[in-house]
Amino acid sequence: MDRVLKKRIAVLGSTGSIGQQTLEVARAFPDKLEVIALAAGSNSTLLDQQVQEFQPKLVSLGSQGPSLEEISTHPDIDLVVVATSGKAGLLPTLEAIRSKKIVALANKEVLVMAGEIVMAEARKYGMEIKPVDSEHSAIWQCLQGEESNEIAQILLTASGGAFRDRPYKELAHVTAEEALRHPTWNMGPKVTIDSANLMNKGMEVIEAHWLFGVQYDKIKVMIHHGSIIHSMVEFADGSIKAQLGVPDMRIPIQYALSHPERWDNSSMPKLDFDQIDSLKFAPVDFDRYPCLKLAFEAGAKGDTYPAVLSAADEIAIELFLDGKIGFLDIPKILEDALGRHTRIPNPSLDDILTADAWAREIAKGRYAA
Amino acid sequence: MDRVLKKRIAVLGSTGSIGQQTLEVARAFPDKLEVIALAAGSNSTLLDQQVQEFQPKLVSLGSQGPSLEEISTHPDIDLVVVATSGKAGLLPTLEAIRSKKIVALANKEVLVMAGEIVMAEARKYGMEIKPVDSEHSAIWQCLQGEESNEIAQILLTASGGAFRDRPYKELAHVTAEEALRHPTWNMGPKVTIDSANLMNKGMEVIEAHWLFGVQYDKIKVMIHHGSIIHSMVEFADGSIKAQLGVPDMRIPIQYALSHPERWDNSSMPKLDFDQIDSLKFAPVDFDRYPCLKLAFEAGAKGDTYPAVLSAADEIAIELFLDGKIGFLDIPKILEDALGRHTRIPNPSLDDILTADAWAREIAKGRYAA
Repeated sequence: MDRVLKKRIAVLGSTGSIGQQTLEVARAFPDKLEVIALAAGSNSTLLDQQVQEFQPKLVSLGSQGPSLEEISTHPDIDLVVVATSGKAGLLPTLEAIRSKKIVALANKEVLVMAGEIVMAEARKYGMEIKPVDSEHSAIWQCLQGEESNEIAQILLTASGGAFRDRPYKELAHVTAEEALRHPTWNMGPKVTIDSANLMNKGMEVIEAHWLFGVQYDKIKVMIHHGSIIHSMVEFADGSIKAQLGVPDMRIPIQYALSHPERWDNSSMPKLDFDQIDSLKFAPVDFDRYPCLKLAFEAGAKGDTYPAVLSAADEIAIELFLDGKIGFLDIPKILEDALGRHTRIPNPSLDDILTADAWAREIAKGRYAA
Repeated sequence: MDRVLKKRIAVLGSTGSIGQQTLEVARAFPDKLEVIALAAGSNSTLLDQQVQEFQPKLVSLGSQGPSLEEISTHPDIDLVVVATSGKAGLLPTLEAIRSKKIVALANKEVLVMAGEIVMAEARKYGMEIKPVDSEHSAIWQCLQGEESNEIAQILLTASGGAFRDRPYKELAHVTAEEALRHPTWNMGPKVTIDSANLMNKGMEVIEAHWLFGVQYDKIKVMIHHGSIIHSMVEFADGSIKAQLGVPDMRIPIQYALSHPERWDNSSMPKLDFDQIDSLKFAPVDFDRYPCLKLAFEAGAKGDTYPAVLSAADEIAIELFLDGKIGFLDIPKILEDALGRHTRIPNPSLDDILTADAWAREIAKGRYAA
């Protein structure tokens, strides 16, 4: 009796930043959420603790236990939180949709690589993809009760990253450690570096295009220090709706799990306008953020270009974190891979994975050379 | 064929500020709106021009032509814009609801005086009241697709009025002319004076209570210079939604007419975030704005108290505009009337009108004394 009222969830990537915060939400709502499956890449210590607390039926660690596709198609699961990083989330997302599971999507690469295929499957199976990213959650919240054909513009806010106040020429010499200090959000290392050069925002532009069916010339990125307004939507009549909140990922995670309801969470930190005297904005400077420009271009080119962008970026970030390249070499590696890529028109999933593998080799080769 | 697709509207108060802007929206959408009736109080010159342009079936000027109740119950009308000022809008609003017309409500006094009765009739006849005020339109827009029982707090923004930057003690000597210069909105004289002392905001608090079924301790007023964010709603999960736009009443008027659709209006001015570097907020100081405090108190007391507040305010503003009392005498007149009032519990419409008449006499008497 109690059981049927709970959403039965799987968390793919449970030991990562989003995975851990998803479990905080699950901990706060034991009457609404039941954790059926946990999957982690390599952090066995934390996974063991999570297993002990939530007693899931299915547990996966790296290649041990059921595969991510097995978990995301399991009959006991209603909702799959895809919080893996990189391309690992792609196949489980598609399989979850095909098994008519609700997908709460935190992994950016899924839609960047294969937005057209994923959204086509979601339409075919009548499943909505619920975004977990704070920006897409904001847009999605602003669109509740609205018609997507009445969107005039999406206004995607960006904190400006760790280096927003540094002179551009100094960025050639910043260290990985410095880039890992994000001014507002506490996130994993790849996402934090991607935030520092707005590559993250570029990927969000491509995701927003697919999630909300909005063309690239109707997506505008703006700098908003403080990450209070998480994004906005302008409608055909000139009215704008914005979603605001403290920069705490548990809010959008909870919304993806509770939607269409909102659950009362008194333990969640609240925005206090008595403490906020202003919200600040600035136009984005594409010369300062070449990765953002490349993402808009790759998105507009479509087909396999976004997958190339995403794959080359994964390699470039690894090289940067390993201290092998400078911060300003990241966009150079992306531009090189995109420039040398030959489009695969109307790509299948295999074509996308081929382009992904190709781009990784090119990006690595560029460093080697 | 074409006819059935159009909303057939009546504009009560067509020569006032909101009435004129309503006709601007009607002019922009001749394929969506048909003006069936126009009613004005005394401005015959402007009414004649409006009649010539829109060729309405029904025209009313003061006591000439059909009454406002006849217009608002006329079978050819789908939607009644109640843009009268003062208590003149009350009976036509109730009659429109009982005739199952859509009511677009711009008149604040209707809900302040008789919110309980009006909302009960709206529920009984299954009619939603569509707010025209920018703040209530903002809240209403934020609530699209949301559940009102999941509202944690309404955040009502206030520009702070014409005197927000003046030392309080100087306000005793400000003139009506100075008070009529509102920093952002272009409105009628009563509303502008009400804005200068936040009485306007106090009335909006009472309206918001009735329109959205939110208790007074969950309505917070905050100063927001520039009138870009028109109001916000905080939900149970800590998420906040805001509606933004240029301070132009045509946007909320159009939304009340177009809802649940949004109409593409390229002639409407748009907010340009490249030109906005910050949005500023400040807590409201109740000592500086005693009218706001009185409105919260009158609202919480309920029954006939809000009607007394509203009626005494109409008289106080008249006295101020006539140069007979000072700006800081307005709250004194309101406080005096509220203090001397004896509650009529569960008031009928007649009881409310009795309290209204009583309060007017008391307010006038206070000046005479």
